Amino acid sequence: MSELVTAAMVVIGDEILSGRTKDRNIGHLADMLTAVGIDLKEVRIVSDDEAAIVEAVNALRARNTYVFTTGGIGPTHDDITADSIARAFARPCNYDDRAYSLLEKHYASRDIEFSDARKRMARMPEGAEHIDNPISIAPGFRVENVYVMAGVPAIFQAMLDNVIPTLKTGAKLISETVPSSLPEGAIGGPLGEIQAAHPETIIGSYPKYQDGSFWTEIVVRSRSKAALEEAIVAIRSMLEDIPPRQVAKG
Amino acid sequence: MSELVTAAMVVIGDEILSGRTKDRNIGHLADMLTAVGIDLKEVRIVSDDEAAIVEAVNALRARNTYVFTTGGIGPTHDDITADSIARAFARPCNYDDRAYSLLEKHYASRDIEFSDARKRMARMPEGAEHIDNPISIAPGFRVENVYVMAGVPAIFQAMLDNVIPTLKTGAKLISETVPSSLPEGAIGGPLGEIQAAHPETIIGSYPKYQDGSFWTEIVVRSRSKAALEEAIVAIRSMLEDIPPRQVAKG
Repeated sequence: MSELVTAAMVVIGDEILSGRTKDRNIGHLADMLTAVGIDLKEVRIVSDDEAAIVEAVNALRARNTYVFTTGGIGPTHDDITADSIARAFARPCNYDDRAYSLLEKHYASRDIEFSDARKRMARMPEGAEHIDNPISIAPGFRVENVYVMAGVPAIFQAMLDNVIPTLKTGAKLISETVPSSLPEGAIGGPLGEIQAAHPETIIGSYPKYQDGSFWTEIVVRSRSKAALEEAIVAIRSMLEDIPPRQVAKG
Repeated sequence: MSELVTAAMVVIGDEILSGRTKDRNIGHLADMLTAVGIDLKEVRIVSDDEAAIVEAVNALRARNTYVFTTGGIGPTHDDITADSIARAFARPCNYDDRAYSLLEKHYASRDIEFSDARKRMARMPEGAEHIDNPISIAPGFRVENVYVMAGVPAIFQAMLDNVIPTLKTGAKLISETVPSSLPEGAIGGPLGEIQAAHPETIIGSYPKYQDGSFWTEIVVRSRSKAALEEAIVAIRSMLEDIPPRQVAKG
């Protein structure tokens, strides 16, 4: 059986916490990691505050294979992610020569001033490796197991596409969904028994509510196809056995 | 000046971390809290795991005025929020008499069995107060400064509507947005100086990328209308002073 590969995410930005910007990166990262068999264990959204960023990154990098951050690597005064990551690793945060040249050339070719603000985007913790940014050039970076990426979704996604193929991926979790018109309350008891009898699976029950009715999606996940199929058979058989009067709303 | 009122949120559920369900509650809570002047300081998304829930709730309740949780209070085996909150407060988790009667009556009136699974929804930490649930009856609950609510967005929103009027609200943060067709790199330097000169404001700069062009939304927040207006004047004047060649893409 393959090693379990885990990940955590730190979303950095006051604009998410104020509700002004709705995050679109968490769901994308979750989908991408699940697709390659990496377990996303925790996400934290923190403000543009060095102490908060350092605490979250240090707590999560110690107990996960990978940590991914989004946000705070642009050119303005509230972009403090590079400094905060440097602080988390107790490394200096300097201009990176290669990033500096890349940006200098990029702006020169467009006849745009390479301002002090834009130069900030060349700063990163000493020893960091670049994550290429095909959209706006300013690179993200990696320090040990921490991948620092942009918050703008198009740029985050482009950077992540460069990162995913470099990751150690886990045994992929396979999943199968059994929709049921029954509400959770009608199936919770027997479903718990099925979970206990099928320890190699993770059985999730997701209540849905639409147009005044409750129904349930049951999702079985496993790293073993055989274990998954046995649990699915047990669930389908359980659903067929529920007395019809349970099918009422509630 | 009013006391600062802060909040944190714990989103509980494997389905969010796997990407299967996209969270719709974080943005809603953020909007609601901002509207009443409460600062949302941190959000954590954790899995259906007691130790993870206890750690997040205990870390956040100690340093915030309020903590709001969503998810994991339904009738199935993976709904472990009530037990986890009880554990976080070192209280027993028992059937709550009033919740039990509410649910018993609700199901009896619809001729639906009050199954052991459904009875689970009457369990809560000893001494918890109910948060009414007008949609599916099973209440959320409050223990000290922790508000435990459903994950299904319609139910979460209905519960939150009952909670918001009971909260101590902060001095409301007012905000004003200045859109700029300039990219962040063109304004980052002078904007940082304006932030330094206007300490009673929080100036955020949010890069936007659309159809190959970068532009910026500058948001000024303050508890003082006068301070906000002074910063806005300074920003508008700064934007007028940027030389036109900076308006290129980049």
